[in-house]
Amino acid sequence: MNGSNDAYVRAGVDVSAGNATVARYRDVVAGWRHPDQVGSIGGFSGLFRLPGDDGRLLVGSTDGVGTKLLIAAQARRYDGVGRDLVNHCVNDILVVNAKPLFFLDYLAVGKLDPDVAAEIVGGVQRACAANECALIGGETAEMPGLYAPEHFDLAGTIVGIVDAAAVPDSSRVVPGDAIVGLPAVGLHTNGYSLARALIGEAEWNQRLPDDADGTTYLDALLAEHPSYERDVRAIQGVADVKAMAHITGGGLLDNVARTLPQDCKGVFEQARWQVPPIMAELVSRGDLNHEERYRTLNMGIGFTLVVPLAAAEKARNAVAGAAIVGWIENRKPDEPAVVIHPLRTATR
Amino acid sequence: MNGSNDAYVRAGVDVSAGNATVARYRDVVAGWRHPDQVGSIGGFSGLFRLPGDDGRLLVGSTDGVGTKLLIAAQARRYDGVGRDLVNHCVNDILVVNAKPLFFLDYLAVGKLDPDVAAEIVGGVQRACAANECALIGGETAEMPGLYAPEHFDLAGTIVGIVDAAAVPDSSRVVPGDAIVGLPAVGLHTNGYSLARALIGEAEWNQRLPDDADGTTYLDALLAEHPSYERDVRAIQGVADVKAMAHITGGGLLDNVARTLPQDCKGVFEQARWQVPPIMAELVSRGDLNHEERYRTLNMGIGFTLVVPLAAAEKARNAVAGAAIVGWIENRKPDEPAVVIHPLRTATR
Repeated sequence: MNGSNDAYVRAGVDVSAGNATVARYRDVVAGWRHPDQVGSIGGFSGLFRLPGDDGRLLVGSTDGVGTKLLIAAQARRYDGVGRDLVNHCVNDILVVNAKPLFFLDYLAVGKLDPDVAAEIVGGVQRACAANECALIGGETAEMPGLYAPEHFDLAGTIVGIVDAAAVPDSSRVVPGDAIVGLPAVGLHTNGYSLARALIGEAEWNQRLPDDADGTTYLDALLAEHPSYERDVRAIQGVADVKAMAHITGGGLLDNVARTLPQDCKGVFEQARWQVPPIMAELVSRGDLNHEERYRTLNMGIGFTLVVPLAAAEKARNAVAGAAIVGWIENRKPDEPAVVIHPLRTATR
Repeated sequence: MNGSNDAYVRAGVDVSAGNATVARYRDVVAGWRHPDQVGSIGGFSGLFRLPGDDGRLLVGSTDGVGTKLLIAAQARRYDGVGRDLVNHCVNDILVVNAKPLFFLDYLAVGKLDPDVAAEIVGGVQRACAANECALIGGETAEMPGLYAPEHFDLAGTIVGIVDAAAVPDSSRVVPGDAIVGLPAVGLHTNGYSLARALIGEAEWNQRLPDDADGTTYLDALLAEHPSYERDVRAIQGVADVKAMAHITGGGLLDNVARTLPQDCKGVFEQARWQVPPIMAELVSRGDLNHEERYRTLNMGIGFTLVVPLAAAEKARNAVAGAAIVGWIENRKPDEPAVVIHPLRTATR
């Protein structure tokens, strides 16, 4: 990490504490492991052998919306956060090719307002319906003293299912394969502590520079995390998908890295895709260095798929907005697992 | 409710807002329902038909620890809250006779301390191991601005499995059946906003009155929510269990009510079981009326099982501390679903 996530640390998020915590968790769970637990690919989700059915795996993932919630709460725009949450989870299990079965939400509030709670959970329900995933339960907790009256936290858990034979086998990834990127619509659910530090509420109703659509800062900040399931299924229909990554916290640098075999690296060419205006603005305001840009933000790519070079063009054409954003090269020991070639000129 | 949960409202928890929210949720989810979703019994958990396997159901439940966390955080005693969380969830799916498969946790903090996080998640992992349940994943989120630096929230989701034929059929409950109660060790994970309002930090190291073991208030407040799975399996070995309830928020009044058929009521006799000293103290300090006692607190019963009268004695003897705490009577229209006969004398 080279101690380089300075902007993020300034915003109150300690990436090195995060890495230390992950290391401690590894020790914590080392003592006992359920025999039906299956190693996950890159840790986007957990896999579990369906009892009495060796051919199928259950897949689970828990996520939260993060401090994007503070913007939604302050702006009193509650219906999008449910979609952020559900779609984030759908994408996490999509990495292992799982189909969503059901979802449960966790909503914690300082003071329970039935209208607000119904708007939030209504968004969860609509996103579940759009993904053909059952909302089978949840918990709503009122916790005065833990949350400020107008604050809330929202997290959720998805459970999906996949044939064991259909889980992508990333050991098949070879140098020369192409990386197809699906476009991000904004920050999705990452980098909000940084964004909140750099863009104040007074600017929310102003228009973003360099944005032809007249989008306001608030619109851009609350743009909803999309589900990539339909896009991925379309690409799988025309190409052999060997590995996938959901670009969340950790950006392209961490998320692509953890799905590639040891002897392969992903090489990205920034010239091959657009950086959304809101991210260009954050890069400029925060004077974010290379590491900060590509680890804290998705920089415009929400999901990546590794496909054979020969299928890359067909894969790209299967989804509007998709781009061939990079390729796989041989990785020597001590080389990074992901390399991103920046634009020659500044991002804006 | 007769507007009677005054003490709880004074502690900042609005039970009527909770009821209004549940009603709003019903509207929210009315628009679309997944065809494989199965009606739950009393809503302790959600049930979902396993695709391609009509004989089995997946069961999911999400819960949090609630404001018990604020006491744990203030006392810096972190390892028990994981057991509180996991055991609560295990009991919730036990109501439909499900066996735990896997668990995912959600930990949200104001400032990430790797040691504290590892202690909390270590407790989750140990409780999972004790329940032979895999901890397959989770999410740890650092959210400055939403949580105070030393605060945290902890929630989790359990997924279990059950043969559809083994889900208790509460329509078999008939007048004359007995209700066996399993002892609570304390508040478990409910009533903490009230307890925090009535017992201040200055008293935590003092000993509880009327407690022979020299337990302090803090020990009693942090006593861990037990898993009732082993006890329930033992009783199922000697008796035909027709219905079960996990006594959480809503107490005996709400939780037993939602698992009985319309024409049956549960009648409890307080003389038949002990009220733990910490709860007697809350009743006395808060001058809690009948409704408040039996809806906000478990009053000493953590789990109930309805069994035929003829098997009641065997069921009680199968588990140390179990008691026959009540019975089933015919319920006329407009009668309450649960009646609790108090002690003739005051609780203490």
